[in-house]
Amino acid sequence: MKIAILGFGTVGTGVYDILKNSNSSELKVFEISKILVRNKSKITSAIMTDNYDEIINNEDISIIVEAMGRTDPAYDYIIKALKAKKHVVTANKEVVAIYLEEFTRLASENNVSIHYEASVGGGIPWIKSIIKAKRIDKIYEVSGIFNGTSNFILHNMFEHGYKFNDILNIAKEKGYAESDPSADIDGIDIQRKLCITSSLCFDSIIAQDSIQTFGIRNVTKQDIDYFKSSNSVLKLVAKSVLYNSSYCSCVEPVLFGKDSIEANVGQNYNIASLVGESIGELKFYGQGAGKFPTANAVIQDILDIYYGSYNNYDLSFDKVLSFDGSLIFGRYFIRFSDIQIKTIFEKNTERFFNIGDNYCIISTELSKDCFQALINKAIELDKTLFYARYN
Amino acid sequence: MKIAILGFGTVGTGVYDILKNSNSSELKVFEISKILVRNKSKITSAIMTDNYDEIINNEDISIIVEAMGRTDPAYDYIIKALKAKKHVVTANKEVVAIYLEEFTRLASENNVSIHYEASVGGGIPWIKSIIKAKRIDKIYEVSGIFNGTSNFILHNMFEHGYKFNDILNIAKEKGYAESDPSADIDGIDIQRKLCITSSLCFDSIIAQDSIQTFGIRNVTKQDIDYFKSSNSVLKLVAKSVLYNSSYCSCVEPVLFGKDSIEANVGQNYNIASLVGESIGELKFYGQGAGKFPTANAVIQDILDIYYGSYNNYDLSFDKVLSFDGSLIFGRYFIRFSDIQIKTIFEKNTERFFNIGDNYCIISTELSKDCFQALINKAIELDKTLFYARYN
Repeated sequence: MKIAILGFGTVGTGVYDILKNSNSSELKVFEISKILVRNKSKITSAIMTDNYDEIINNEDISIIVEAMGRTDPAYDYIIKALKAKKHVVTANKEVVAIYLEEFTRLASENNVSIHYEASVGGGIPWIKSIIKAKRIDKIYEVSGIFNGTSNFILHNMFEHGYKFNDILNIAKEKGYAESDPSADIDGIDIQRKLCITSSLCFDSIIAQDSIQTFGIRNVTKQDIDYFKSSNSVLKLVAKSVLYNSSYCSCVEPVLFGKDSIEANVGQNYNIASLVGESIGELKFYGQGAGKFPTANAVIQDILDIYYGSYNNYDLSFDKVLSFDGSLIFGRYFIRFSDIQIKTIFEKNTERFFNIGDNYCIISTELSKDCFQALINKAIELDKTLFYARYN
Repeated sequence: MKIAILGFGTVGTGVYDILKNSNSSELKVFEISKILVRNKSKITSAIMTDNYDEIINNEDISIIVEAMGRTDPAYDYIIKALKAKKHVVTANKEVVAIYLEEFTRLASENNVSIHYEASVGGGIPWIKSIIKAKRIDKIYEVSGIFNGTSNFILHNMFEHGYKFNDILNIAKEKGYAESDPSADIDGIDIQRKLCITSSLCFDSIIAQDSIQTFGIRNVTKQDIDYFKSSNSVLKLVAKSVLYNSSYCSCVEPVLFGKDSIEANVGQNYNIASLVGESIGELKFYGQGAGKFPTANAVIQDILDIYYGSYNNYDLSFDKVLSFDGSLIFGRYFIRFSDIQIKTIFEKNTERFFNIGDNYCIISTELSKDCFQALINKAIELDKTLFYARYN
């Protein structure tokens, strides 16, 4: 079975290395026959090309591994591959989060399949576990610590007292964070992963812009010190809940008790959880990024194509769901610098606790939509505000 | 696809209930056409029988779900089913731990398959995750908190200060422990699960009697209080390690730091971990027992048979491995009542700490085989001795 790899960065080289060097007899049937590189100057071997047509027109190639990232030209290349009746494996959450429905339909029309295990949770067998769980169960809750970069930052602020910017710089040095870290620290990356995850779980495309998202950019050492003093550990969490025909999805910082599993997911590890009707709660823990774990997930997809393991599961996204912000609720911590904000929350919530000059905890179990209306007003007044939901 | 269920206890009724009541379209293709009950007086419907021949001779039945437990007559019934070219799904760890190789060979000879997802970790998708991971990776370490009953006991001793016997009685009342709880508290149940797990991971039958096993029967409230004071949490753990052609497997109480994932696996939950070459560490958490999670795992196996998902993976157990007790090592806590025991350890270990009249910690990184020789001598002198390895 002949494979082409698009993009030869971290993931692409990881796939290449494992397929070339593994002793597993399962992998002997695969041959990498083409590698697409963006830049002619990077061509160092006969199988490399900068011309996608050479790949798409090669009838021997049956699987395209898209490991370029971003949507352009990844979207076009995936569309062309599916139309050319080639199976596609992608690690690209950005493009899958937007075009999941189109890719799924197009694959089905062309009698091939699209796989994206590596797009959420890196090496964690998460996407296929959802698909398997759904064969039996309705899944009505799904959540996860899906962003290794923000988890690395929060873990080290908590454990070693780093300031946000200092540990962010270390993350950049280690290659955990990009030079523009916005997607990671503003929750955009994890929002994409929640979008893919919940669309699969709920049989309905959960639009990215329906996911209320607040990142960790504003968190300070003082915030973390306060959480630590009350035995709470901060994590950036994506969560979706289904109830009848309503759903609620959000990405926000969440405070876990120190003695919980989530609180102890350290460094750049991920954890993904689902709650199903008969199976109850399942959690999957592992490396959410990194060359080899991500490449491993890509190769699992390649093997699933080879064995036809998931061909029989026709995914559909045609369920009509409406957003209901009352499905997620909780107690919130808020830190602000503008005294008007205090008034906003004091007036509009039943139980309000002042815990310092510029900290408060809203103790009522406030639903997400009520909270969101208030917090949006507050954020307008104070761009440095930080909040977190108590789990 | 017609199914027969052998045994109509917790697991059998769970499978029946899910298949009958589920709305999942995936499950509509299955029909339960026979249920074997041991006792004629329990026959309450036309599909029930106490005669196995009626099932084995029924050519329409293609899947046999063995949910009886114990080895007799489960072993005979499974053998007969495979020889009659029927697929077998079993939740019975006792029979699989002993006859895994024979069942696998017989299934392959008869062109059918045997599945046992529910035998380890209940509803956790563990067995199939191992098989999938092994398609790419060599797995060189595997471990787990696989016994819900002992975890329930240890969790509640730690959290609520129960004495061992009091919480054991509560576990019996709740149906978590059997009237004779030996298999759970002496580590026999978890030993069977390790046997199945490591045989699959290492391509070699790991004999039950090669697994050094020490349970939690002797743990006292005083032991737990001491662990608590040093921020350690006690768990009963099964672990196997592979290094070249050597392995070491053991079941023993292990002390985890309070801020670890394992320490926070509470109540009767399970966690299963593996370490693979490229995937790194993966952990799977969920309900290790209970009617619906276990039945869910059985039905996942039924679906895998229907889709032929795992037919292509020929499992083999022909790798020759030798036991090497030096592969697992650590610092040990020992509590004893006989003064001679102190002498045994004081003489034979480099760093020895007296932490009370009848407690000691051996601080050298003692290998399992050295430790085992000493502890066996000590247990002969003191039947109430308790020990645990620091993780």
